[in-house]
Amino acid sequence: MKANIGLIGLGVMGQNLVLNMNDHGFTVAVFNRTTSTVDEFLAGPGKNTQIIGTHSLEALIDNLESPRIVMLMVKAGEVVDQTIDKLAPLLSAGDIIVDGGNSLFTDTQRRTIALKEHNILYIGAGVSGGEEGARHGPSIMPGGNKDAWPIIKNIFQSISAQVDGEPCCEWVGDNGAGHYVKMVHNGIEYGDMQLICEAYQLLSDGLGLSAYDMQAIFAEWNRGPLSSYLIEITAAILAYKDNDGQPLLKKILDTAGQKGTGKWTGINALELGIPLTLIGESVFARCLSAQKEERVKAALVLPKRPLKFIGDKKTMINAIRDALYAAKIISYAQGFRLMREASKEYGMALNYGDIALMWRGGCIIRSRFLNDIKQAYEANPDLENLLLADFFVDAMKQADEGWRRAVILGIELSIPTPALSSALAYYDGYRSEKLPANLLQAQRDYFGAHTYERVDQPRGQFFHTDWTGQGGKIASTTYNV
Amino acid sequence: MKANIGLIGLGVMGQNLVLNMNDHGFTVAVFNRTTSTVDEFLAGPGKNTQIIGTHSLEALIDNLESPRIVMLMVKAGEVVDQTIDKLAPLLSAGDIIVDGGNSLFTDTQRRTIALKEHNILYIGAGVSGGEEGARHGPSIMPGGNKDAWPIIKNIFQSISAQVDGEPCCEWVGDNGAGHYVKMVHNGIEYGDMQLICEAYQLLSDGLGLSAYDMQAIFAEWNRGPLSSYLIEITAAILAYKDNDGQPLLKKILDTAGQKGTGKWTGINALELGIPLTLIGESVFARCLSAQKEERVKAALVLPKRPLKFIGDKKTMINAIRDALYAAKIISYAQGFRLMREASKEYGMALNYGDIALMWRGGCIIRSRFLNDIKQAYEANPDLENLLLADFFVDAMKQADEGWRRAVILGIELSIPTPALSSALAYYDGYRSEKLPANLLQAQRDYFGAHTYERVDQPRGQFFHTDWTGQGGKIASTTYNV
Repeated sequence: MKANIGLIGLGVMGQNLVLNMNDHGFTVAVFNRTTSTVDEFLAGPGKNTQIIGTHSLEALIDNLESPRIVMLMVKAGEVVDQTIDKLAPLLSAGDIIVDGGNSLFTDTQRRTIALKEHNILYIGAGVSGGEEGARHGPSIMPGGNKDAWPIIKNIFQSISAQVDGEPCCEWVGDNGAGHYVKMVHNGIEYGDMQLICEAYQLLSDGLGLSAYDMQAIFAEWNRGPLSSYLIEITAAILAYKDNDGQPLLKKILDTAGQKGTGKWTGINALELGIPLTLIGESVFARCLSAQKEERVKAALVLPKRPLKFIGDKKTMINAIRDALYAAKIISYAQGFRLMREASKEYGMALNYGDIALMWRGGCIIRSRFLNDIKQAYEANPDLENLLLADFFVDAMKQADEGWRRAVILGIELSIPTPALSSALAYYDGYRSEKLPANLLQAQRDYFGAHTYERVDQPRGQFFHTDWTGQGGKIASTTYNV
Repeated sequence: MKANIGLIGLGVMGQNLVLNMNDHGFTVAVFNRTTSTVDEFLAGPGKNTQIIGTHSLEALIDNLESPRIVMLMVKAGEVVDQTIDKLAPLLSAGDIIVDGGNSLFTDTQRRTIALKEHNILYIGAGVSGGEEGARHGPSIMPGGNKDAWPIIKNIFQSISAQVDGEPCCEWVGDNGAGHYVKMVHNGIEYGDMQLICEAYQLLSDGLGLSAYDMQAIFAEWNRGPLSSYLIEITAAILAYKDNDGQPLLKKILDTAGQKGTGKWTGINALELGIPLTLIGESVFARCLSAQKEERVKAALVLPKRPLKFIGDKKTMINAIRDALYAAKIISYAQGFRLMREASKEYGMALNYGDIALMWRGGCIIRSRFLNDIKQAYEANPDLENLLLADFFVDAMKQADEGWRRAVILGIELSIPTPALSSALAYYDGYRSEKLPANLLQAQRDYFGAHTYERVDQPRGQFFHTDWTGQGGKIASTTYNV
């Protein structure tokens, strides 16, 4: 009996996806570069399953039914290219390679096009949900060569998370669309996590609450509009005791890693010229956390004033909750606005409602809130910005005052809230009919003859002023060879 | 008589550099793709000079003494490559090409290495100072093939700005170093401009001050520690009247352009993993200003509460000044921290004191403040971060309270201050011995088995917890093929 699908790369995600497929009645053949891992897997978690272990790519391929589907769960980057180079010569026309790692969308774009010439159908599928998601139902975002979709659809929709009877897996779009959307998902995940960290620090250092108190607060928040996987596990983490009975959280070093998808999302936003301030700040916050030794020095040279919160704690806890919720809305508004631009720029024809649906379950950012986003895009698929949808207009109005109070608390107590305050600045900027960029344009025209538009003239007409009376009349637009 | 140097590209910057060189006794041969521009230039600003006009690249080259120096003042990107492709075959071993445009440093790196193989010495020189600087003394940041430096040094140090008898032009470093430092300069320029815009909006919309009042305030600030070219021209801009006697500033549309160097600086910071939040926010603020039509819509749907400032205006004006100064220090601290990382990463061996010296005069960001930076690096060339230097420690302590008050004013009145508040969050984060990244690491370990370090164990030891009691013992570090 031949396998329905082959999988290369038995890391924690790969192993769990294989077990998940096996649970759903699919036969999986597996291969790992370090072949002893195959044997250990089959003797351990893979015992008493239909999983077929192989010790070479050739054996893996021989064990697959046609058209062959081979899923890669290997390290993004060169390893994917190396694996494809070894794999492609063993495949036949119409066979499918699925990359389930966190590849850069432009790499997926390149690979999809290159393999099309050899009649191999390439899919870049973002997979989110971590260890648990992979095992019991992840969110899967497939894009690439659409000809492969009818062939792989059943497997991937079967193993994905299901919410209200709908799979958290849908066709995303051509070429790099799957990995693009996964990249933005991860950027949003960076933002969500940073926001929770800021709320935690306000509660802990600002209000002086214990892990026990905070666990109850996050558990309560998880029953309201903030209900989400990350809030849920935050409560669980706060409740987790080390061997000595103390909260384990206090023993964990405050230096976070960052590379890959969060960073890419920020770079892509800069390239497309779309403000993605909250995720940008979240990536930089991780970078700053990594400068631990410098921070320890700076803390001695630039000590904080030892101020304490005076006021009603209950009110402030609710203000922090409102801040978290409002800033989260901003983060998603920025992320979806970015995807809107990318969809246009890269011709991906993204369906924003489907994306919200895919993220509703299975993945790290799954939340009740994504239903509201899905509904907003169902009501208006061409929505320019989530902040203009009725539901979110109301939500922002309700959270407005508490949000400001929480950010001010941080400022007064010298507790950094880069993401909460950046979101607030974006919100106030976005709803500003007038921003001070008129001065910026005047400066650019003053020193660089860059010209400006006028409020009393139609758009597209450019003016230059000889501000000093000594400059020339040459605008920089004549800057050519 | 042959010319000392040739220049291609008679835009406003090119023309002014040529006139500047001519003033300093250098003979310049010029060429422009649209050759009528050459004739117009010689009949106009170039009349009664030693400037030699040419109508072909061949004629330009024929008119140069050996070794030939050809400066390009053409559009960055493909046009530079195209021009080099036409120019290189006409040159001899030991001849020099200087790119004075805003090229991406990696392009300059590539070109320097490629032309070295043909024995042509390539220089990428950042030139700042706009129209006026180019004419009367810009800041020039040359890097590339160091063999060219003794040959071009005299011309470039002669035409550059001079401060206290020292030229604002010094050798920056190998390959792309000159354009790298110019890129960071431009990023810092984005930050400086955004900060001034935010201060302007707080004064104008927050305190209700007139252009007349604000002109006086900026003129006063220009006599203190904020003294700089950009503050000076802001006062001049505020004073400038349109034909109808009204401030011209009010007629200028609030949509700023952004592409190129500011964006690149942000991207580079993300790539190197160094927080550059203020410049990042400044780039995104320009992007948001460009979404004018969306903002007009949002202003109707999400109106601001009509609040007024109550309090002592004079005190708040000083608070805004302190905010501007403190945030500016943060911006430079972030920028120099980035260069420190780049110097290591790209092996550029940058001299930070020299860089401050080059920026002290001639360029757009020239200021009194850069003297203080120069002195800090002279006192300690290995300074990790400007914020740790005595002078800046004192400055931050003095500005601290006013800075917070100004940001809170913005928050209370819904006036966006993305750069001022982002700088504050960075400052409070940088001097935090403990950040909430311990929670972030716990989350990552919870859902992705990413492991964490512990405060009670040596660095470099990684731990994984089975938080749910159901997860595996496989850490994601085993994630391999």
